[in-house]
Amino acid sequence: MCSEFDIIHRYFKRTATGAVLGIGDDAALITSTTGIELAISTDTLVCGKHFFPDADPYKLGHKSLAVNLSDMAAMGAKPRWALLTLTIPNDLVNQNTAWISKFSDGFFALADSYQIELIGGDTTAGPLNIGIQIIGEIAAGKALRRSGAKLGDDIWISGQIGDAALALQHELRNFTLKSTEIEQCLPALLTPTARVKLGQHLIGLTHSAIDISDGLMADLGHILTASEKAAYINIIDIPCSPVLKKYQQQSVAMNCLLAGGDDYELCFTAPKINRPKIETLAAELAIQLTRIGEIYSGEGLIVKDEQGNTMTFDTQGYDHFRN
Amino acid sequence: MCSEFDIIHRYFKRTATGAVLGIGDDAALITSTTGIELAISTDTLVCGKHFFPDADPYKLGHKSLAVNLSDMAAMGAKPRWALLTLTIPNDLVNQNTAWISKFSDGFFALADSYQIELIGGDTTAGPLNIGIQIIGEIAAGKALRRSGAKLGDDIWISGQIGDAALALQHELRNFTLKSTEIEQCLPALLTPTARVKLGQHLIGLTHSAIDISDGLMADLGHILTASEKAAYINIIDIPCSPVLKKYQQQSVAMNCLLAGGDDYELCFTAPKINRPKIETLAAELAIQLTRIGEIYSGEGLIVKDEQGNTMTFDTQGYDHFRN
Repeated sequence: MCSEFDIIHRYFKRTATGAVLGIGDDAALITSTTGIELAISTDTLVCGKHFFPDADPYKLGHKSLAVNLSDMAAMGAKPRWALLTLTIPNDLVNQNTAWISKFSDGFFALADSYQIELIGGDTTAGPLNIGIQIIGEIAAGKALRRSGAKLGDDIWISGQIGDAALALQHELRNFTLKSTEIEQCLPALLTPTARVKLGQHLIGLTHSAIDISDGLMADLGHILTASEKAAYINIIDIPCSPVLKKYQQQSVAMNCLLAGGDDYELCFTAPKINRPKIETLAAELAIQLTRIGEIYSGEGLIVKDEQGNTMTFDTQGYDHFRN
Repeated sequence: MCSEFDIIHRYFKRTATGAVLGIGDDAALITSTTGIELAISTDTLVCGKHFFPDADPYKLGHKSLAVNLSDMAAMGAKPRWALLTLTIPNDLVNQNTAWISKFSDGFFALADSYQIELIGGDTTAGPLNIGIQIIGEIAAGKALRRSGAKLGDDIWISGQIGDAALALQHELRNFTLKSTEIEQCLPALLTPTARVKLGQHLIGLTHSAIDISDGLMADLGHILTASEKAAYINIIDIPCSPVLKKYQQQSVAMNCLLAGGDDYELCFTAPKINRPKIETLAAELAIQLTRIGEIYSGEGLIVKDEQGNTMTFDTQGYDHFRN
């Protein structure tokens, strides 16, 4: 049988070279350079809420870190260190250790690709609950914030959105995709890519930024609230996959596009004068960056349909305490 | 009904004055002064494992933070910032908000007493799981580590240990205390005090330190392993309450003393030459500090009984994955 200390030593303990002190003491120790701010964030994945009980542990290890990396991306920070608070049922530990082994493989594969060090955490028995804390560095005063959107700003989003939510609706049997279609949408749900490099390159180009984790309307809404501004977006401009496009006229798919969470693309606002630089950046990083609307004064978010008419909704972004 | 954002705004959002940016963006931002290291740690409390489902939420808010403060104490760090990852069942949110309100009251009462700021977190629906991350500051190179115990060091512990475990055994009906006795022991279990000030004052006086969260034998064992040393301790010298003393000859109580977790006292080793300074510190802080044994070369931990004979055990500290 595997003890708490065994689990940490076998699967999670590594020598930290970028920290003063890593796993194994009462706390980890890090230092930051003068002129650097530390960006700190945490996101938790709960079994039955964020993933199915039979989820592939390797992909879960990836996603748990990816959703946290996305917060660093949204701040423009370079992720450096992580902590892992893993609550895990005894049966996953006792039956075999394959689950933890695969989970840690998925976690470290992604962590290594960004040279992120796991410097601490806590391992406990209980209902499966995966908490990760991420710490990144950013030049003082340079962080991309939600507040700061200005009148006349373009609203941009990276990549394509809606596939993660569409795949989830399929898995929940609320919507049926063909097998080739679900194959195309599932990676967005199970192994999302955080826009870490993009975030860092957006420093100096944007007035505000957020990652789309709760859905476009909710997350753009957070920018508007924090910036005390209004906005309109054009439904026709929102970039989505051919699969989602095909079903866009059906309310489930439209909902996925506008209010589906779990995309982890970036939504940001920037002055029009920066369009050329942002387009150059898109080409350099080979990331699709699309203008979807504009910041106005006032408050509220208007979505315009293909004819330019205002659409009405009763949907908002995902909320963990709404049913 | 209360949304995720309502919960954060109503109960947890405060203006952070000691951080560059607090709750409300994708990450919090902090800076540290030149010459300062940041100590970072996380501890999770799981319902049914660390507390009973009907636990008083105010006391739970206190304890969740206290166990994390204890890690700062064990490093000698000054706690500055915290993050809270709260997974909470819908019924606790929906039936009424009294639970969250009381939990946050207990959390902030303790946080305020140390001027600690809550700068971030995550709130999700699911089986009750309380994760706190704590960040503290310490002068570079000065942290109290587990490694570093030296031959001939005195082994010290603060306060009295065993009451928390004894109260738990009573609550689990493995042991029966009188009502006046359980009243005396329960505070150690439900509202422990982290030795934050003591930890900071021990800088420069000790060779190694740890907090007693898993039990004296396990935690002193961590010091010995990290320091590659052996030790003996005298059972008669281990400070305990009159209640525990009364039952000490019974194996349950003896077990609580030696292997009971949840005490959050500090165990540290220091050269004999520092005895007068440590005794002065005890008087100044009005904290009982007791020498219980000595560091030897080799490996292993020997407990001596009242006659100086070696005791034998099959018990170790608490492990979350042992039944």
